[in-house]
Amino acid sequence: MSQNYKYRLTPLIKELPAIVPFVGPETAERDIGAPFFARMGANENVFGPSPKAKEVMRQAADDIWKYADPESHDLRTALAEFYGVGLENVMVGEGVDGLLGYTARMFCSPDAKVVTTQGSYPTFNFHVVGYGSTLHYAQFKDDREDPEALVEMAREVDATLLYFSNPNNPMGTCWPSETVESLIENVPAEAVLILDEAYIETAPENTAPPIDVSIPNVLRFRTFSKAYGMAGARVGYVIGHAGLIAQYDKIRNHFGMNRAAQMGALAALDDQDYLHETINKIKNARERIYTIAADNNLSAIPSATNFVAVDCGRDTAFAKSVLDGLVARRVFVRMPGSEPQSRCIRVSVGNDENLDLFARELKVVLSDLR
Amino acid sequence: MSQNYKYRLTPLIKELPAIVPFVGPETAERDIGAPFFARMGANENVFGPSPKAKEVMRQAADDIWKYADPESHDLRTALAEFYGVGLENVMVGEGVDGLLGYTARMFCSPDAKVVTTQGSYPTFNFHVVGYGSTLHYAQFKDDREDPEALVEMAREVDATLLYFSNPNNPMGTCWPSETVESLIENVPAEAVLILDEAYIETAPENTAPPIDVSIPNVLRFRTFSKAYGMAGARVGYVIGHAGLIAQYDKIRNHFGMNRAAQMGALAALDDQDYLHETINKIKNARERIYTIAADNNLSAIPSATNFVAVDCGRDTAFAKSVLDGLVARRVFVRMPGSEPQSRCIRVSVGNDENLDLFARELKVVLSDLR
Repeated sequence: MSQNYKYRLTPLIKELPAIVPFVGPETAERDIGAPFFARMGANENVFGPSPKAKEVMRQAADDIWKYADPESHDLRTALAEFYGVGLENVMVGEGVDGLLGYTARMFCSPDAKVVTTQGSYPTFNFHVVGYGSTLHYAQFKDDREDPEALVEMAREVDATLLYFSNPNNPMGTCWPSETVESLIENVPAEAVLILDEAYIETAPENTAPPIDVSIPNVLRFRTFSKAYGMAGARVGYVIGHAGLIAQYDKIRNHFGMNRAAQMGALAALDDQDYLHETINKIKNARERIYTIAADNNLSAIPSATNFVAVDCGRDTAFAKSVLDGLVARRVFVRMPGSEPQSRCIRVSVGNDENLDLFARELKVVLSDLR
Repeated sequence: MSQNYKYRLTPLIKELPAIVPFVGPETAERDIGAPFFARMGANENVFGPSPKAKEVMRQAADDIWKYADPESHDLRTALAEFYGVGLENVMVGEGVDGLLGYTARMFCSPDAKVVTTQGSYPTFNFHVVGYGSTLHYAQFKDDREDPEALVEMAREVDATLLYFSNPNNPMGTCWPSETVESLIENVPAEAVLILDEAYIETAPENTAPPIDVSIPNVLRFRTFSKAYGMAGARVGYVIGHAGLIAQYDKIRNHFGMNRAAQMGALAALDDQDYLHETINKIKNARERIYTIAADNNLSAIPSATNFVAVDCGRDTAFAKSVLDGLVARRVFVRMPGSEPQSRCIRVSVGNDENLDLFARELKVVLSDLR
């Protein structure tokens, strides 16, 4: 920064580190000077969106000179119908990340306390810290977020927000709906539960409790980025009590949504048959990753998502070596950021070609390391 | 809002009104129960983007399962080359609106004062108020923003930000580069100049001063939404001193950009021939609007943008009647929000069909009113 500037950033902004929540695969590709052969690190969905959604997005190029409807009326209406809630219970935003940012802005004053799990979604933490609130961390318990510990900590620190993801990223684990219902009942009334269900479509049947928008302090975040295969489009949504949902209009970037993306999401939602085919492909790919892990004498953590945490069986340094080996061989994977989860690498599902390559390269990397 | 909620919004959010900066044309269409015949109210560019950009966006549907590069490396590199600045001097965001929001967040503490022109861009004001700062308004002078008054007021109130658009929206007027250079020289070192140049490509040659990223406190905002014809894609950018530009990484939604949009913008930037053809079409359409105004004994304010403020010759109420008449006849236009500029309606350029319709309907509406 220029040493002689006199402008006045807010004290908070001045102190914030210039960190990024995730380094993109493109950065790694520029570093290694070559594209990845398999892109299995960002929990993207290689099977992509419904062909109908793709076609709608292609056609939308002709009308891209028009702003998108800032109220996202058609998409929100379709989502409201899909979930049996009112239009006033749904807000659409620039991915769940964007909506988490708005939510942090709504609640995160400098004196607010926010409870989450150490090693869970860093982008949520990025937003919370970015608005000056203090994070308090519960620990994973058997590689799952620990709802009882989270509620206890929320009471203890008088939390304003409690973050819980189900299924969880980066471990792929989940809790049955009864546990989540109990969490919803027990979350203090003074706190809002941020229930991140980005991976809900690929989870077992009994994972999501029914959506009840009469509860004043629960927000449920879902997305077209994962099972719907549209990560690059940036369409997330949040469902909740009308009183909470109304707050977004006070602060959001009203014209922030891409027009083609909104239309594509609408078409993707409408093609549930395709979604179910994709979910089956994801399940088969998960099974294949389990098998590849077993073939290499590694264990895999059963996943409810479109990725699998493969336990490399030793410490963080070893898992990091496995990851570095794969990246050097141009297979993009990531790993959890906190111990002991960082004994794992996190492998997003791929197509057959990706999985064949992963199987081959993992064997080479492990034999080099052993 | 639920009367018995106990969650704790920040005091600022609680007090904010649930206003929106602009109501979209889709809302009006839903109100009147029919689509507009001509969409000439949102300063969109009906001529659309380069066919090369469209083709890139169409093809991008196949890879929309991938997140976009969160560093927007390729687009930022191309912009940096185009402007002869460094990569560290350019940030890309979800439209200029999104970037203005981030900028407000960087500077707008509750004790900060922000100077702008009464009736100038309301979305900037939305963000400033949204972060709790106080707006101070200079007045238009002969339908142009008044740089001297703005600087004087900035000194007077000890402003943290000074907003100046050149060309201006909603009037379409502009100042020559010498005036802007003088503004840049005179803006207090304690303030940052927000120089909104969204319409710069359609302005006369000598409107933008050279870009000088050694100046610590000037941010220049430009967009692919206007002359480049990609409003629905949401790609804006800001150019400035590296020390200022680095602040965006601390707070922005790193994965907020649509992948197809980034690639489309890159292709659009690369097709300057098409841009220049479009600019000519816009100039011709402006001339046509001047003529239509004159044919109806109205005057038009010479425009440097892709829209024309047509002076309806009487007061706000009359201009509002003209606007309502046009909207009822399914021609979408808007009008300035403050007096005396609100004696005008604001008409975005259209294609020949749009302009023929506008000419016909304006005559009918005026004869009904007279």
